[in-house]
Amino acid sequence: MTAADNGGTAMTRVVTLTTDFGSGSGYVAELKGRLLQAMTPFTLVDISHEVPPHDIRAAAWLVGQSCPAFPTGTLHIVVVDPGVGTERQLVWARLGPPQAHQEFLCPDNGVLTLALKRLPLVAARRIRVPPEASATFHGRDVLAPLAARFLDGLHPESLGDPLDQLATLRWPAPEEAPTGVQGEVINIDAFGNLVTSLPATLLPRLQATGYLRVGRHEITTLVRTYGEAAAGSAVALIGSQGFIEVAVVEGRADKRLSARIGTPVAIDIPASENRPN
Amino acid sequence: MTAADNGGTAMTRVVTLTTDFGSGSGYVAELKGRLLQAMTPFTLVDISHEVPPHDIRAAAWLVGQSCPAFPTGTLHIVVVDPGVGTERQLVWARLGPPQAHQEFLCPDNGVLTLALKRLPLVAARRIRVPPEASATFHGRDVLAPLAARFLDGLHPESLGDPLDQLATLRWPAPEEAPTGVQGEVINIDAFGNLVTSLPATLLPRLQATGYLRVGRHEITTLVRTYGEAAAGSAVALIGSQGFIEVAVVEGRADKRLSARIGTPVAIDIPASENRPN
Amino acid sequence: MTAADNGGTAMTRVVTLTTDFGSGSGYVAELKGRLLQAMTPFTLVDISHEVPPHDIRAAAWLVGQSCPAFPTGTLHIVVVDPGVGTERQLVWARLGPPQAHQEFLCPDNGVLTLALKRLPLVAARRIRVPPEASATFHGRDVLAPLAARFLDGLHPESLGDPLDQLATLRWPAPEEAPTGVQGEVINIDAFGNLVTSLPATLLPRLQATGYLRVGRHEITTLVRTYGEAAAGSAVALIGSQGFIEVAVVEGRADKRLSARIGTPVAIDIPASENRPN
Repeated sequence: MTAADNGGTAMTRVVTLTTDFGSGSGYVAELKGRLLQAMTPFTLVDISHEVPPHDIRAAAWLVGQSCPAFPTGTLHIVVVDPGVGTERQLVWARLGPPQAHQEFLCPDNGVLTLALKRLPLVAARRIRVPPEASATFHGRDVLAPLAARFLDGLHPESLGDPLDQLATLRWPAPEEAPTGVQGEVINIDAFGNLVTSLPATLLPRLQATGYLRVGRHEITTLVRTYGEAAAGSAVALIGSQGFIEVAVVEGRADKRLSARIGTPVAIDIPASENRPN
Repeated sequence: MTAADNGGTAMTRVVTLTTDFGSGSGYVAELKGRLLQAMTPFTLVDISHEVPPHDIRAAAWLVGQSCPAFPTGTLHIVVVDPGVGTERQLVWARLGPPQAHQEFLCPDNGVLTLALKRLPLVAARRIRVPPEASATFHGRDVLAPLAARFLDGLHPESLGDPLDQLATLRWPAPEEAPTGVQGEVINIDAFGNLVTSLPATLLPRLQATGYLRVGRHEITTLVRTYGEAAAGSAVALIGSQGFIEVAVVEGRADKRLSARIGTPVAIDIPASENRPN
Repeated sequence: MTAADNGGTAMTRVVTLTTDFGSGSGYVAELKGRLLQAMTPFTLVDISHEVPPHDIRAAAWLVGQSCPAFPTGTLHIVVVDPGVGTERQLVWARLGPPQAHQEFLCPDNGVLTLALKRLPLVAARRIRVPPEASATFHGRDVLAPLAARFLDGLHPESLGDPLDQLATLRWPAPEEAPTGVQGEVINIDAFGNLVTSLPATLLPRLQATGYLRVGRHEITTLVRTYGEAAAGSAVALIGSQGFIEVAVVEGRADKRLSARIGTPVAIDIPASENRPN
C-alpha cells in the first residue's frame, strides 16, 4: 500500500521493530533513523527491544503472538541475529491470506517459527547483502534501507531468489502419554504468568482431571479469570493467547512454582479412568 | 511538509497507552495492532508500560501527572486491571473543560483518581463487554477495538448507561496536627527524588520552620533547584509537579533516606511558636 | 492530516527525545504532551529515556552515535540536565552540511560532544528562559514548547544571542606510547560488547600484533563478525560504530573481562619490532 493507494482513507503503512538491542540502545536509534529516510509516510511501532540477547526462541514467540493483530500489509522487521555476517540468509517473507497478510524482513534463523504456525507462508525471497554493508549490523545496513525502499514502492520480486521454505525451530507441542497429556511452559509474561503449550481445547480434560501438574506442583484451582480467586492463590485458566495458563493472583507464578521456560506441565488421566493392571 | 501543506489543520488525534504489561510485552503489541486497525490516522504515544504489576495507585499518579499536558481531545487508554473479567466495570470518561478536555478508556477501579482531582468529570459511560471477548484481556478485546471505533467516528453516547461518578482511591492529603502539617511521600521518580503530598503553597511555612522532616531525617537545606547545593547534599525544593520534593543532588534520596511511598513527611510548627504548657 | 493531504511526498519532520527520566516516566509523558500541542504534524521518535541519571557522557555517546542516521532537518531534544535552573545555558544548535544537517535543543553542558566531532557546528543560539518556567524542569517548560514553535514555523534567528562554540567534555582519543597505541573502553552495549576508542583504521596494526590488550586480558582471536568464533570465545573485531570492539560470542565481554567505561585497551608494538637496549 502507498499513500496514493489509500486515497487518504486509512493509516499509513505500519512498520514494526523487534530486536534484542535493549530499550534506549543507540542501535535502535540508528535503525529508526535509516527507516525514516523513506520518502513515504509510515507508522513506526516498537514491538520490543527487550528480547533477551540472542534469544531466537523468545523473538519467535513475540513475533508469533503479535503479528496477527496488525493491519494487513504491516511490515515487521525482526533483528535478533546472533549469526549476523555468517552464512545465515537474510529474507523477506509474506505470510497469511491477501486480506490479512503480514510481511517480514529478518534473518532466516527461526524467528518466524510461531508466525508460520499461525499464518501460512505465501512468498519469500533471499536478500542480497551489498558489499558495503558492515559485517556486524545488517539491521541498519541492509534491512532498514530495504524497508525504506519497500515503503517507497520497491517490489519484493526484485529481490534475490525465491525460497520455498524458511528455517524453523523445534516448537513444543503437547504429547499424549500413558499418564495423560504432557506439555511445557512456553512463555512467561511480565506478571510471572506461565503460558503453557497446552491449547485451550484441552479445557474439558483439565476440568475432568481437576488439576494441572506444573513441575512438582499441582494446581487445583481452575478459574475463568484471575480475580475469581483470592490474592495469592495459584490458579489455572484459559489465557488470552489461547493456551492453558498458570497464574498466582496478584503475585508471580514463576517465582512461587519455581517455573521457567521448558518446565513440564501435564494433565493426568482422571483418577476414574486409571485401570488396575 | 509544513502546516500549510495539510491545510493548517492540526495534528491527528492523540491516543496514549498506560499499562502494567512491561516494556516489550507482546500484550502491548497486540493492543497496538488492534488500535492500528482504525481507518483514521492518529498519533500513538506510550506513556508507560512499566507501571508495577496491579498497582492502581501508581497508574493513578502517572495518569494524573501526564494527562493535563496533552492536547484537547486526547484519548488515554489505561489498562492496569487486576480485576479483569470480574464485576468491575469498564468505562469511557471525559474530564475537563471543552477547550482542554481529556478522554479515557479504562477499568473503573480508581486509575483516574488523581486525574479527577485535576480535571472535573464531564461525562462517563459504562462499556458493555461483548460476549466474544476473552475473560483476561479486555484491553485488547474491548478497549482497543472501541478506541478504533471512536477514531473512526463512533459517538460515546452510543455506549452503555451514563455514570455520575467513578471509583476513586483514598488519596493522601496534608493534615494539620498540633505539631505542624503532616503529609507523606506520594511518588518516587527515576532519580530517586521524593515527591510529597505537601503542596508548593506550604513553602513559606517550610521556610519559617527551616527544615522538612522525612521519616526520621530532617532536611535543612532548602533550595530553588538541584544544582544549588553540592553533590551529595539532601535538599528540599518545589518540584515540577507543584509539590514539595526531596532530592539528593546527583544521588538518590530514596536510598539515602530509606524512604518509600507512604513515608511520613512533616513541616513542624516553628520553634518560636512552641508554647510551654 | 491524512496521507492524501501531504500528497504522499515525504515524512513529516522528525523530532527525537533523549533523556535520563527513565522509561515510562511521567516526565517523558509531560514532554510529549507539550510537544504534541504543535499545530504541525511531526514524527516523534524516542531515542532513549534510559540514559543513566545525570550521565552527560553517556548521553553524548548516544546522541553522537544516533544523530547522523536521521533525515536532514531532524530536531533532537536532549534533556540530561543535572544543572537545570543554574547558570548553565540552554541552546539551540545546527550541525552538519545543508544536505544532512541535524538540529538540537539541549543544555549546553557537553551532551553534543561526540555529535560535534562527527558534524561541524553551523549555528547556535542561546535560549532565554521565560520567568514563568519552573526551576527544575526546563525540558517541559522551555524546550518542548520551543520545539513546538519551531515545528509551527518559528525561526531560530529569533532566539537569544548567537554562540560561536558549545561546551564539550574531554573525549578519549587514542595515544601513541613507547609500548604501542593506547585507548580505552568508551561504550558498553546491551550485549556487553566493549566499544573502544581505537578506530577501525588501526586494524592492520592489530593484525600485526596479533592481540588486543583489554585491562589485564589479551584477546587473541580476531574475527570479522561474532559468529566466526565458537560460543563463549572472546574476540576482537571492527564493530558497527567504526571502532575496534571486543565481544564474547553469545556471552558478555564486560562481565568476562571485568571491563567498564574507561578500562584501558592497547595494541602493543609487535614483538618483532621490540629492540633490545
